[in-house]
Amino acid sequence: MGLALSLGRRGQGQCWPNPAVGCVLVRDGRIVGRGWTAPGGRPHAEVVALAQAGAAAKGATAYVTLEPCAHHGETPPCAEALVQAGVARVVSCLTDSDPRVSGKGFDILRAAGVEVETGVLAEEAARDLGGFLSKAAGGPPHVTLKLATSFDGRIATATGHSQWITGGAARRMVHGMRARHDAVMVGAGTARADDPMLTVRNMGAIRQPVRVVVSRRLDIPLMSQLARTAREVPVWLCHGPDADAALVEAWEGVGAEVIPCGLTGRQLDMASVLERLGEVGLTRVFCEGGGALAASLLAGDLVDELIGFTAGLAIGAEGLPGIGALGLERLDEARRFELVETRDIGGDVMHRWHRH
Amino acid sequence: MGLALSLGRRGQGQCWPNPAVGCVLVRDGRIVGRGWTAPGGRPHAEVVALAQAGAAAKGATAYVTLEPCAHHGETPPCAEALVQAGVARVVSCLTDSDPRVSGKGFDILRAAGVEVETGVLAEEAARDLGGFLSKAAGGPPHVTLKLATSFDGRIATATGHSQWITGGAARRMVHGMRARHDAVMVGAGTARADDPMLTVRNMGAIRQPVRVVVSRRLDIPLMSQLARTAREVPVWLCHGPDADAALVEAWEGVGAEVIPCGLTGRQLDMASVLERLGEVGLTRVFCEGGGALAASLLAGDLVDELIGFTAGLAIGAEGLPGIGALGLERLDEARRFELVETRDIGGDVMHRWHRH
Repeated sequence: MGLALSLGRRGQGQCWPNPAVGCVLVRDGRIVGRGWTAPGGRPHAEVVALAQAGAAAKGATAYVTLEPCAHHGETPPCAEALVQAGVARVVSCLTDSDPRVSGKGFDILRAAGVEVETGVLAEEAARDLGGFLSKAAGGPPHVTLKLATSFDGRIATATGHSQWITGGAARRMVHGMRARHDAVMVGAGTARADDPMLTVRNMGAIRQPVRVVVSRRLDIPLMSQLARTAREVPVWLCHGPDADAALVEAWEGVGAEVIPCGLTGRQLDMASVLERLGEVGLTRVFCEGGGALAASLLAGDLVDELIGFTAGLAIGAEGLPGIGALGLERLDEARRFELVETRDIGGDVMHRWHRH
Repeated sequence: MGLALSLGRRGQGQCWPNPAVGCVLVRDGRIVGRGWTAPGGRPHAEVVALAQAGAAAKGATAYVTLEPCAHHGETPPCAEALVQAGVARVVSCLTDSDPRVSGKGFDILRAAGVEVETGVLAEEAARDLGGFLSKAAGGPPHVTLKLATSFDGRIATATGHSQWITGGAARRMVHGMRARHDAVMVGAGTARADDPMLTVRNMGAIRQPVRVVVSRRLDIPLMSQLARTAREVPVWLCHGPDADAALVEAWEGVGAEVIPCGLTGRQLDMASVLERLGEVGLTRVFCEGGGALAASLLAGDLVDELIGFTAGLAIGAEGLPGIGALGLERLDEARRFELVETRDIGGDVMHRWHRH
């Protein structure tokens, strides 16, 4: 199942709105088929593994990271495909929370005499597929918040100079991380200050993540790189009810998608922004700041994974903070994240944390 | 020589104003003696190793991390002891910069027909013994700056709540780090806010580091833990010329030592503070903040080693910054430190950096 999970992760960022599932077929102690959700979401992992196994699937055990689907969509349900191939046993991590599946996949298998076991490595699978499961239940997608800061947690000098705090190896790693998410998200301040492309570069032919900008007023230059390339790689703008209608039209005119969202106080309500993004299919969002957006996500307890890159230089207290105001008085008001790994990436420290 | 260096490090923090030297005696491919500078500085590493070797020292090779001493102090010079024991060859990392030695140790050896080689692992030895060598040449001691911060580089909430950002394992590790330095140093703000003891606890019977507080005006409560324990573990106060004479007297009255230092602008000049500390014998100083002192040290380019402990929680931009204002406009104005290691210490990230 560890192998199936790692195969499943290969599809992350490439198959939304579908879940990135992995499947391994084992017969007589030998692996006879391996598969993961293909780019774009079809074929599913089980179908890929069954095709690889051919006749060897008969009597095999299928390790699948998520309950096989039960509904007739663009393709016949995977539960039926497993039955038809003669698979004897299906081991799975989780029940699918999609109401079209939700136990029905297992029912089809059991009704056909296939042995079913579930709950194996469920915690790990829940991390990998959490965004899909949450989205399927009407919740927000998985949110990874990444910050590249100085030793003292700053993302730029007071004059806005920020290129580059971390080294080339760390920046290349960030492109790999972007590729494993459905969307890259930044706040309006970062979009204005850095004029970023937010694309994945030098990673071969991959599905580019959607570029999401959170901007209450849509006040981002229409001459920005994002605007100029919106027809090549999707740009989605989440804005508030008070955004100028002319700006909405102008952004639609350059090929961007505009998504109206609700406010909480004077700011965009990030819970509702993320729910809207889930509704339109995103399962994994990679947020790259700036400080105000990072603070909104943390204050709303919407961050599932925290990734820091820390460089060996100090910028000082006038520098731009990586995380804006949170209004905490005591430490126990803050959520504690759990350290997953820390590594030297080309001379910078990479540290990765999970929500408990 | 790697072994000699690691033996030498055992004496760090325990033998100032003497250097923490290591020595290994090898004869016919076997180690016949090992030694490091004893607590308090006597006997020296060579003498310890020679005593262990006894007659086996005859014809042996001595690996010593620093040039053997040549001057008659409390004990006869080590260079002569090596000659008398019949050591055939001395391999060393560095020439001692103490003007009483400075090549004279090697001269005594060569004059007696002992083969001398130097410069082996010189860079590593220069890191370990850097504080002693610099101090011996009239410069500042080695400065390690340690900061325990939140994910976003804060050391307390806006209301001053800071206990505890990092976990128990990280805090225990800090006690071990204190023990390997001659002194622990904090600024007046930290002394007032935290009322710290700054002693090494639960590490067995060791020489406690001197507790140094940098306070221009000596405005630290005389009821503080530092004041109340100044007769048990030394407290040294570095103050400016405008400190109140009555406060100077009061602190001397509780058993602290007061060290007048010069100003640069409105702040204590940290280069001169450190030179004064070197003059009175300190070779390695462990600075634990706060933000203003950390910034003064960094702005003066006086930090040799940077140690960060990063916890998995965000405090936000109103929190107290770990490093105060530095006045940088561009990133290339900041010194870059070189990453030595990063590790998971009980769920916090420990990262250690050297000055290039």
